[in-house]
Amino acid sequence: MSNKKSLNCIGNIVVVPIGVGTSLSKYVAMCHKILQKYPIKTKLHSNGTNVEGDFDSITQAIKEFHHTLHDIGVPRIHTELSIGTRNDRVQTMKDKIDSVENKLK
Amino acid sequence: MSNKKSLNCIGNIVVVPIGVGTSLSKYVAMCHKILQKYPIKTKLHSNGTNVEGDFDSITQAIKEFHHTLHDIGVPRIHTELSIGTRNDRVQTMKDKIDSVENKLK
Amino acid sequence: MSNKKSLNCIGNIVVVPIGVGTSLSKYVAMCHKILQKYPIKTKLHSNGTNVEGDFDSITQAIKEFHHTLHDIGVPRIHTELSIGTRNDRVQTMKDKIDSVENKLK
Amino acid sequence: MSNKKSLNCIGNIVVVPIGVGTSLSKYVAMCHKILQKYPIKTKLHSNGTNVEGDFDSITQAIKEFHHTLHDIGVPRIHTELSIGTRNDRVQTMKDKIDSVENKLK
Repeated sequence: MSNKKSLNCIGNIVVVPIGVGTSLSKYVAMCHKILQKYPIKTKLHSNGTNVEGDFDSITQAIKEFHHTLHDIGVPRIHTELSIGTRNDRVQTMKDKIDSVENKLK
Repeated sequence: MSNKKSLNCIGNIVVVPIGVGTSLSKYVAMCHKILQKYPIKTKLHSNGTNVEGDFDSITQAIKEFHHTLHDIGVPRIHTELSIGTRNDRVQTMKDKIDSVENKLK
Repeated sequence: MSNKKSLNCIGNIVVVPIGVGTSLSKYVAMCHKILQKYPIKTKLHSNGTNVEGDFDSITQAIKEFHHTLHDIGVPRIHTELSIGTRNDRVQTMKDKIDSVENKLK
Repeated sequence: MSNKKSLNCIGNIVVVPIGVGTSLSKYVAMCHKILQKYPIKTKLHSNGTNVEGDFDSITQAIKEFHHTLHDIGVPRIHTELSIGTRNDRVQTMKDKIDSVENKLK
């Protein structure tokens, strides 16, 4: 079982609390604070949060989002996680943006 | 830390192997076989796989996809996971479809 | 401008109405009925709807979802559309599933 | 038919070219240049591009991505579009980020 091995990811997380009205930023801020407890680099953007770090840390943070939001009264939660991994070379979130921006110059 | 508690999910997984040409069904089939090792209900559809089960099982299966595909030579992998959880009532994948279909009658 | 040319897609649509409580199947059913007005093949699954057809039909249906749901009182809507196109060969939704299932035998 | 009416969106676009190796930034840069031709605000991040503007402009830009990339030899393309609309109030990409950041202070 290869599953103890760490897996470095660049990813994106979108959390949509359902059943608590239309003002969701309070919940997004709570999730952002949870993310800070994990060894993950984060960058908030207007449609989610970019993350860089170990797969297990990222997924455990998401699990904690769901438990925490349910505990404070959010009845339903929809979360999307995208992750990218590669073993042809090491790449950071910054590298990905730089690589596109260099080609736009 | 509430993270030991199980979290039941209905979700969807899309795996996109990158750098191995355009025929991806071989890799999707491998991932589908990996999913069968976990206590997860699965249903293949034309844009991914519906899953129902515990969050940790679902995410560990995805981690195993990435390690396995990288080990056989896939250099880059993009995966999307959507998950829905609710604590207002118990709901299965079948319940969700039935609920919509009943309203379409 | 190549944009008049049709673009055949296989895709997936997920609509999440926000601010109307946790029972969403009524809205999903409405969207499903809207889809039937367009020349699109559809298949409901437990996390969305698979679609096959022309890009413009698919996106115009989604636009109609948003206008229709807003008109009946849904204040906020989150929609995800995934689309896949290829020009190396013709492929249907059924072909994609058959291709994976043949490798699982 | 309500479909002539404009629909203002905040969204996110992820384009994954398939069958052209693992270096994708060249293609992402091309898509970014196509976006600049449309009346859309854009912000590149490490997992996609945030967009703000009219639904028809955003979707026509995506259609142009697919035609353009296919024309230069990308055989298969996977694109994800998320869009959010609301009619309870006007909101920009900047408003969404500010709203979360104010709660993090």
